[in-house]
Amino acid sequence: MATDRNPLKMPAKNKANSLGKSYWLYGHHAVKMAANNPLRKLERLMATPSALQNLGPLPKTCPPPQSIQSVDLSNLLAPGTVHQGVAAKVHALKPVSFDQFFSTLGDNSRYPVVVLDQVTDPRNVGAILRSTAAFRGSAIIMQQRHAPEESGIMAKAASGALELIPIVRVPNLSRSLRKLASLGYWVVGLDHDGSEPLHSSPLDKPVALVLGGEGRGLRRLTRQSCDVLSKIEIQTDIGSLNVSISAAIALYELDRRG
Amino acid sequence: MATDRNPLKMPAKNKANSLGKSYWLYGHHAVKMAANNPLRKLERLMATPSALQNLGPLPKTCPPPQSIQSVDLSNLLAPGTVHQGVAAKVHALKPVSFDQFFSTLGDNSRYPVVVLDQVTDPRNVGAILRSTAAFRGSAIIMQQRHAPEESGIMAKAASGALELIPIVRVPNLSRSLRKLASLGYWVVGLDHDGSEPLHSSPLDKPVALVLGGEGRGLRRLTRQSCDVLSKIEIQTDIGSLNVSISAAIALYELDRRG
Repeated sequence: MATDRNPLKMPAKNKANSLGKSYWLYGHHAVKMAANNPLRKLERLMATPSALQNLGPLPKTCPPPQSIQSVDLSNLLAPGTVHQGVAAKVHALKPVSFDQFFSTLGDNSRYPVVVLDQVTDPRNVGAILRSTAAFRGSAIIMQQRHAPEESGIMAKAASGALELIPIVRVPNLSRSLRKLASLGYWVVGLDHDGSEPLHSSPLDKPVALVLGGEGRGLRRLTRQSCDVLSKIEIQTDIGSLNVSISAAIALYELDRRG
Repeated sequence: MATDRNPLKMPAKNKANSLGKSYWLYGHHAVKMAANNPLRKLERLMATPSALQNLGPLPKTCPPPQSIQSVDLSNLLAPGTVHQGVAAKVHALKPVSFDQFFSTLGDNSRYPVVVLDQVTDPRNVGAILRSTAAFRGSAIIMQQRHAPEESGIMAKAASGALELIPIVRVPNLSRSLRKLASLGYWVVGLDHDGSEPLHSSPLDKPVALVLGGEGRGLRRLTRQSCDVLSKIEIQTDIGSLNVSISAAIALYELDRRG
């Protein structure tokens, strides 16, 4: 029985899911949403008694929860992990291809998609997933390479949104931007050289919002594939916004006009 | 000579500045802005040759930079620290009292102040400092207790804004909110029970934007001390926004109408 296993015997520390295998996901929202996602396979579920109570009723497909003390869970995960008394070992979600995603989008095709050009920090990607879910974005598109895999860190920052927002992985970003344009999207790159305000995009088209990596911004080819380069006006002495902050503001702005 | 010291002999790992003493600050923007802040005392400055070049000319008050290899800097700081090849040991800035700050505010009194009610994650406070600087906020007000001290983590997330935005520490938050109201501020709490949209606040008053701690939101007394409770509309299935994201969106919104 799974409940008889000694949790402390488990070998793996929490780490990025670089091989597309299972990984530890932690934190109340992340675990609760994962447990209730029919597309998500949980291998194990561990929680302190009070964290388990907070999770509420779980679907029958969930493995039986194992009781664990908070300190033992801390020892199991990477140092400093804020796990809120609950963790689940999960399989990574099945990757979604560009064509798969857009062929089944239906009514949601009027909402923005977010395109990330080599955003490498999983915490930023997680935060952007959360804002995408909050402001009715339909998906995040990233390259297969130079983009982080699903991981506990990403899931924690996403606060459940990893279960709501598909991540579409593509081999070539500028080709995908051209395909988005041909599907009727207005392709808006956020860039400090941008000139057009966000709200100047045509109202009858959905927006593909393109954001560049931390520190580097959009690559040349990516910029050239945008319909327009847009900018969030800020005070010059601070230089730039974090990419997850830019994404949230842009998505908020688009949601308000939508 | 400081430059003759062996960097590897330095004892302290990077940690929060819980005693108000000196601490290690790292990352290009954070160190560059600190080095150029006349109110900031640097004890030591260490950089790889290329990171030093990126810093550009430094004021004469700066200690002579010590050359260090990236790997040695990594060993010196907490594991996983993204230091970008540069770190400085600095003294915490002198605390600013409420009366001190508002008596010298002058023309900037029309810009928003941000009030944090037990936001405890230094990364969130740092990110909020950065957005405050980006969108013309004039200060952050926090309690003396239940609020993080200056630290390398906070400074890195602030990306230089720790040198631009004063942190005002107060003994009692609701008393400070009443004082802000008497100074002519419109005190707006962000809360999921909020009803008024942010842009409904009177245009002839500066805004004090009040944000609650991670997970808990505003405390009862804090809410009662607000003129209005406001809300950022989001999709219900995601639950909430991270406090640093809420702050950025609210500051962006206020800056646009300002």
